[in-house]
Amino acid sequence: MSENRNEGSSQAAKANSDTQTPSHFKVTHPRLRDQLKKKSSKKKGFKFVQEKMLKFQHVIRNQFLQQISQQMQCVPPGDQQCTQTSRKRKKMGYLLSQMVNFLWSNTVKKLKFKVPLPCLDSRCGIKVGHQTLSPWQTGQSRPSLGGFEAALASCTLSKRGAGIYESYHLSFQSYEAYQADKYHKDKNPSGYINLSTSENKLCLDLITARLTQSDMNLLDEAQLQYSDWKGQPFLREELASFLTHYCKAPTPLDPENVVVLNGCSSVFASLAMVLCDPGDALLIPTPCYNGFVFSSHLYSKIELIPVHLESQVPRSNLDSFQLTVDKLKLALTQAKKKAKKVKGLVLINPQNPLGDVYTQSSLQEYLVFAKTHKLHVIMDEIYMLSVFEPSVTFHSVLSIKDLPDPNMTHMIWGTSKDFGMSGIRFGVLYTHNKEVASAMKAFGYHHGVSGITQYKLCRLLQDKEWISKVYLPKNHSRLQKAYSYITKILKDLKIPFYNGGSGLFVWINLKAYLSPCTFDQEQILHQRFRDKKLLLSSGKSYMCIEPGWFRLVFAETHLHLQVAMDRFCHVLAEHKKHEK
Amino acid sequence: MSENRNEGSSQAAKANSDTQTPSHFKVTHPRLRDQLKKKSSKKKGFKFVQEKMLKFQHVIRNQFLQQISQQMQCVPPGDQQCTQTSRKRKKMGYLLSQMVNFLWSNTVKKLKFKVPLPCLDSRCGIKVGHQTLSPWQTGQSRPSLGGFEAALASCTLSKRGAGIYESYHLSFQSYEAYQADKYHKDKNPSGYINLSTSENKLCLDLITARLTQSDMNLLDEAQLQYSDWKGQPFLREELASFLTHYCKAPTPLDPENVVVLNGCSSVFASLAMVLCDPGDALLIPTPCYNGFVFSSHLYSKIELIPVHLESQVPRSNLDSFQLTVDKLKLALTQAKKKAKKVKGLVLINPQNPLGDVYTQSSLQEYLVFAKTHKLHVIMDEIYMLSVFEPSVTFHSVLSIKDLPDPNMTHMIWGTSKDFGMSGIRFGVLYTHNKEVASAMKAFGYHHGVSGITQYKLCRLLQDKEWISKVYLPKNHSRLQKAYSYITKILKDLKIPFYNGGSGLFVWINLKAYLSPCTFDQEQILHQRFRDKKLLLSSGKSYMCIEPGWFRLVFAETHLHLQVAMDRFCHVLAEHKKHEK
Repeated sequence: MSENRNEGSSQAAKANSDTQTPSHFKVTHPRLRDQLKKKSSKKKGFKFVQEKMLKFQHVIRNQFLQQISQQMQCVPPGDQQCTQTSRKRKKMGYLLSQMVNFLWSNTVKKLKFKVPLPCLDSRCGIKVGHQTLSPWQTGQSRPSLGGFEAALASCTLSKRGAGIYESYHLSFQSYEAYQADKYHKDKNPSGYINLSTSENKLCLDLITARLTQSDMNLLDEAQLQYSDWKGQPFLREELASFLTHYCKAPTPLDPENVVVLNGCSSVFASLAMVLCDPGDALLIPTPCYNGFVFSSHLYSKIELIPVHLESQVPRSNLDSFQLTVDKLKLALTQAKKKAKKVKGLVLINPQNPLGDVYTQSSLQEYLVFAKTHKLHVIMDEIYMLSVFEPSVTFHSVLSIKDLPDPNMTHMIWGTSKDFGMSGIRFGVLYTHNKEVASAMKAFGYHHGVSGITQYKLCRLLQDKEWISKVYLPKNHSRLQKAYSYITKILKDLKIPFYNGGSGLFVWINLKAYLSPCTFDQEQILHQRFRDKKLLLSSGKSYMCIEPGWFRLVFAETHLHLQVAMDRFCHVLAEHKKHEK
Repeated sequence: MSENRNEGSSQAAKANSDTQTPSHFKVTHPRLRDQLKKKSSKKKGFKFVQEKMLKFQHVIRNQFLQQISQQMQCVPPGDQQCTQTSRKRKKMGYLLSQMVNFLWSNTVKKLKFKVPLPCLDSRCGIKVGHQTLSPWQTGQSRPSLGGFEAALASCTLSKRGAGIYESYHLSFQSYEAYQADKYHKDKNPSGYINLSTSENKLCLDLITARLTQSDMNLLDEAQLQYSDWKGQPFLREELASFLTHYCKAPTPLDPENVVVLNGCSSVFASLAMVLCDPGDALLIPTPCYNGFVFSSHLYSKIELIPVHLESQVPRSNLDSFQLTVDKLKLALTQAKKKAKKVKGLVLINPQNPLGDVYTQSSLQEYLVFAKTHKLHVIMDEIYMLSVFEPSVTFHSVLSIKDLPDPNMTHMIWGTSKDFGMSGIRFGVLYTHNKEVASAMKAFGYHHGVSGITQYKLCRLLQDKEWISKVYLPKNHSRLQKAYSYITKILKDLKIPFYNGGSGLFVWINLKAYLSPCTFDQEQILHQRFRDKKLLLSSGKSYMCIEPGWFRLVFAETHLHLQVAMDRFCHVLAEHKKHEK
């Protein structure tokens, strides 16, 4: 890191020398002038300036962390003194942070420092540990607000509002940069390519063609009116049939156990509210998808307790990041020691970001563990139809004949990943527990799906012939092809990677490029990719316990993958140079 | 009420005599047997049984209220003792309440008591006062759970979940009964007619025809992918143009100030989170739409403080329920005395349930009041295009040239009412405050609208020619016709009513049918309508301070209105008989 900083500093010195060199030290010959300037800048202690700046920023950051952390908590209504103090701190904090930002951005611009920006995941980048944290508490480098104006206006927001504002903007900063500056071969060849957000862009042609067929456009009055808040009955019936078929349920699933909301995160947030009280906890094996943290944070106010998995055999696909019942037990015991109220276990299967699936026997073990400890099991199976490796068999929790505790087992699915329709905002809960299904209705009012969309989804999912014979085979072969393309490059670069034949991403090990192998260095490399307009997700944002891992989404068009991998290789090569 | 109870009791006695009459008291002649049974039952004190039952139920209800009220509050994570006690209470409460329900339902069934069921509004029936209450705290008669089975399963729900479950089911009970048993001329002539839920069913033909035109079916890839969480740029642009035009904005509105979420309640809930901290309060003139209470309750944890308006001249349309700045001042002063942190003022214009619009000068006064006291103004203008009386002019808050405090003024609109598209789940916020707009983005993740629906909405709202020349004139003339039909009947019945030429409902005064004029009696009459399969909304659910008012939605098909009004007249005639 120090080498890198020095390099940055010297570059900065060069760039900034005009403004920093005293007037009596003028040399006319360009090369000599440059050399002297370099030396002079070093002498005049740009490093000192930089260090001061970093220290100042650090102080302010800590002040900010403390205060935002307070803001994020649910302040009891009566606690006026605390509220007032906090409000004062907020205003002061905003202004200070703006000052820092202003100074910092100018310094960075002029000195060309290479400073990491906050790390972002584009589906949802808020990090979590065993505390509900605001994003930069988890290792991000600097708070970055939307301008001085915003800081002044911020007195119109509540503490909670300011916290939400900050969380969102820090988490989605890269995503918004991408949205505003997307790569296009001709129109914007230097725009962002996003291999961070998990979207399947390989079958948009197929889905678009199917969704524009004439059967999709029927519109009856029921679609336009208030309906069952659990979802339109016609869609719930179709979903019961669909899940029975594709999850291989031993007996037909019951439409009354189906709840439709606008996205899996809405389902998760609502389910967490129904199963947990504020402050309760759920176990979740990590690395894992981090979007649930945002949901937990915004609404459910629960805690996600990571069950940390490690890459025991870094250069092999075997045994790495394996979840075992022992690890679950350990995490539970430790949580209980800390007086945590653990209410359930969240499992993602196929796993994100690992892209592997649980074996039937493992799954059974986890479920038995959960039953033994009276834990709910929330199974996120959003990638269940994205198993592209033919030799891999996925086992849905709904396929299990004698579920250890059906009343405590809840499954989430949606079309965002398997059908590449993330913009449709649709998620479904299947629960054997009628009371849970019934309680979930209350959320239809705030997380409902348009009747028109529900109808289209119904028609799409009804067409099992097209799904099984046309869509899935094509989707899987395209995923396989993109996967092969990416992994060949990774192999050539001798970059270890992990994927178990499913999902839209590979989990790559860039430890060899980090020196020392720290989260700070991971962050710097992540920022270098971003500087090159390539978005990847860093392992830390998946609560990975080891630095050096990145998630790379490969479900992109070939052209985009080509450009992305060129940038990827370029960044690594450059990065290595800097490290030397 | 006592007469009514007695009548119920004697009926009950008759119905239940077979099971209650001792075996030594057998008479064979049918008429004599009936007469004797009647006397006997009275002697045997069925009234006593009934009273015992009511008392028992009352005790349990209070126990329940206490406990649910605790459940609904955000229990601090550390407060273990309280949580454990509360959990125990919950389980005990559930079982007891189930016992009561079981006994009660059997008693009611056998004794044919006429007991009011919980009062419901179908858009969202949770009542509110100056506290966040669970529904039956606000005057509803009995907790009604989903069966003994549910009670046993309820240990799987969190306290919060159980509270949500109860709130939802009590609030939406009538609505669900209606959904399951809708009136149909031929297929189900004895089904429910719903004049409680505010839906415009008069223009479904026009909307369906427009939404199925070929221009609606274009589907591009952007609709299927994650987008701007504030709403698709194309829709926000169109909304800025639409609102500029129909709200008569003095200068073009800015698409960046537009936030699209799935329904106005989602917008309100999110806005309340951004502007208020938990425990903060908003003033709201009442009677008013009660759906915001549910939102406040579920997510924002704010308090709605009613500014009570009264019908000073009950049989006239003049001066009744007028909002004045003095009333606002009084409410604010009283709230401040109670150390409430009032953050804003919610205004519904055109008003729901009054159906009138604020004059330009009144509106200006309210806004100046808000500015003086540093209050946000949340203007709900969801009925802005449903002004059917040509002589009435609506003034949107966006039309005001020199807004007293633009940075604190926020306007909500949607297509649910004006376009009869409540099933589309779409609401929009327009705010001049860029920071608020920006903070609201965070909610797009959980309250987003399907890209396909956003496209259709864009096309619909773009077609100003059709809206202005075809849709609105037809909609207004149909509303006017339905309004005339209903109000003629009301006039014939000498029932005072209130409407200021807008909205989908009349606010009717049935005080003459209540003896004594109490909320209990209002509740009984409300239940009588429901017994006759006619849903109306009772005034209490709109936080009306005077008993005897009901909201009746007239934006229904003529056939439904005819049948509904037949039932309405029948209930009132029967009710009068009972009262004599």
